[in-house]
Amino acid sequence: MFPFRVIDQASVQQLLDMKNVIELVERAYTLKEQNEASLFPMVFHEFAPGKADMDIKSGHLTGANIFGLKLVGWYGDNPSKNLPALVGFVMVLDSNTGVPKGMMSGEPVTLMRTGAAGGIGAKYLARPESEHLLLVGSGHLASYEIMATLMTMKHIKKVTVYNANSYEKAAAFCATVKNHLKEKFLAPYKYDQELYNTLLDRIDIEYAATDDIRSATEQADIIITATPSRKPIIMKEWVKPGTHFSCIGADMEGKQEIDEQLFASARVFVDDVTQAVNVGETKVAVKKGLLAKEEIVAEIGSVILGKTPGRLSDQDITIYDSTGIALQDLITADYVLAQAQEKGIGTVATL
Amino acid sequence: MFPFRVIDQASVQQLLDMKNVIELVERAYTLKEQNEASLFPMVFHEFAPGKADMDIKSGHLTGANIFGLKLVGWYGDNPSKNLPALVGFVMVLDSNTGVPKGMMSGEPVTLMRTGAAGGIGAKYLARPESEHLLLVGSGHLASYEIMATLMTMKHIKKVTVYNANSYEKAAAFCATVKNHLKEKFLAPYKYDQELYNTLLDRIDIEYAATDDIRSATEQADIIITATPSRKPIIMKEWVKPGTHFSCIGADMEGKQEIDEQLFASARVFVDDVTQAVNVGETKVAVKKGLLAKEEIVAEIGSVILGKTPGRLSDQDITIYDSTGIALQDLITADYVLAQAQEKGIGTVATL
Repeated sequence: MFPFRVIDQASVQQLLDMKNVIELVERAYTLKEQNEASLFPMVFHEFAPGKADMDIKSGHLTGANIFGLKLVGWYGDNPSKNLPALVGFVMVLDSNTGVPKGMMSGEPVTLMRTGAAGGIGAKYLARPESEHLLLVGSGHLASYEIMATLMTMKHIKKVTVYNANSYEKAAAFCATVKNHLKEKFLAPYKYDQELYNTLLDRIDIEYAATDDIRSATEQADIIITATPSRKPIIMKEWVKPGTHFSCIGADMEGKQEIDEQLFASARVFVDDVTQAVNVGETKVAVKKGLLAKEEIVAEIGSVILGKTPGRLSDQDITIYDSTGIALQDLITADYVLAQAQEKGIGTVATL
Repeated sequence: MFPFRVIDQASVQQLLDMKNVIELVERAYTLKEQNEASLFPMVFHEFAPGKADMDIKSGHLTGANIFGLKLVGWYGDNPSKNLPALVGFVMVLDSNTGVPKGMMSGEPVTLMRTGAAGGIGAKYLARPESEHLLLVGSGHLASYEIMATLMTMKHIKKVTVYNANSYEKAAAFCATVKNHLKEKFLAPYKYDQELYNTLLDRIDIEYAATDDIRSATEQADIIITATPSRKPIIMKEWVKPGTHFSCIGADMEGKQEIDEQLFASARVFVDDVTQAVNVGETKVAVKKGLLAKEEIVAEIGSVILGKTPGRLSDQDITIYDSTGIALQDLITADYVLAQAQEKGIGTVATL
């Protein structure tokens, strides 16, 4: 019988901070590039099309001696039952023995590692002097994407937020986001006055909602898309040279956020080629023959390791298609488990 | 945050009995036949070929409002580390909300539902008057297969046990099996004197090891194979008309227990056509063109429901290829959870 630790949502939230998660996710990406990690095939099932689905993402981090899975269910009707739309868990096991190490709520892990992915895309592919971030989507991921990008990009002066369905929601989001970022993400750094003050400066910028996505696109240096959209929101002709995209939302058949024509001339990077081509933003472009699978420049891990250059000039349009891979979840969850064990957080159950 | 129940191995063992598990597994099979259940694609990964692997089986029982998964790791070197070779867990979630119901040790669920599968194959496909059971394999599944078959078949008088690698192990198994069956499987029925006495009679038969698999095959009415073999142990020319096979061991690429030539003339039944053709005993026969996928007579659920006849005559050779499906695990685990909740067994953790 095996004791293993179960950590609830609030405790996972408390144990994670964005700076660490960015480092962890970069490590997951580089381990993958160094063949010290592998992804297993994704399992996806729709209970009711457009209303409820679930996926199981799993993989092995040889370099960290762990394997495991994340199961996430999405139930559109849940909020009407006073339940969250996304429900899930991450399970981590020792890959040398198969013995469970622990499990935890999947939601905070997903939000943090997905935010980190958007920021990492900008860090390695956007122009370093980028000043204007456009966030497409004002949902539960938005503050995570903004925080991660403000951490990885030093010169952001303005964040524009667009919600394709509701200007009001984008405006409401912008009205509170600065305070929200401070409360939610900066608390862990209070022990480090210098870092805390740096980040306090970083978040002290302009946040504005827009209902004019064309004009916002024309002005943006970095565009992060984090929506459940099923048709392109951003058209190619609006995009200025030098723009970087981190595409976060598309993670299954049918989802799309930006004009597939963008892929024909952009430098395209992904987290995992197979997953990007099958379920990511890249999928439509490959299907339509605008981009051959072989034309994907590299997986992001290769750029982080310096094996492949990111952008070649200030004029390049770069795209980072982040479908979200199990390795991000597993490395983050393993960190949570180590912290929880050290601090005696969570319930120890027996299997 | 969601409370959910975690049940350890000893408690799962205590909450399961073979009579109930046979009924549960039959229900899983029939729900599948009635399209009230679906299997998701299986995930399989070899950490070290022939030494360590893991699989994730998942599915949805619409008819029981649950979905979930079983992850099982097999580590050949574990026993030398004082760990079991098989380690795993089953997770059950509410399919209307995605909320976790609970999880438990996978080993006792696997052993019980796999034993039940062998016995169910015999119940619906073997000649009812069958007297002689040959068990190929004397490993951890052997007593489960025997107990389930003694429960489903009334006239068994002799069980012969064959271990391809060691006659001594088969002999040692036979020396203690009767007592082992009594202690391990009959205890739950002490409250029901009539059932207890019936089963006590059923297990009070001859158990004999053999090193002559040809002669044992020639005499057998029912043959259950439960080994990790990678080549056929039983050849077609040894098999007498009327024999029934429940093939349990083959559950991945490369495994095989009986001569694929048997499939050319036998009536072949499976638990799941896709899984049987991809990873089951049926796989080699289909690959070699001895059996077309369409020639599989039916999934076992159809026979249980009376939609498809099992054997057509006393002369038929019948094969039940049981690859082991997630639905068996989920329905069994859900039963364990209900029992555990009623009896207050297990640890309640929060996600």
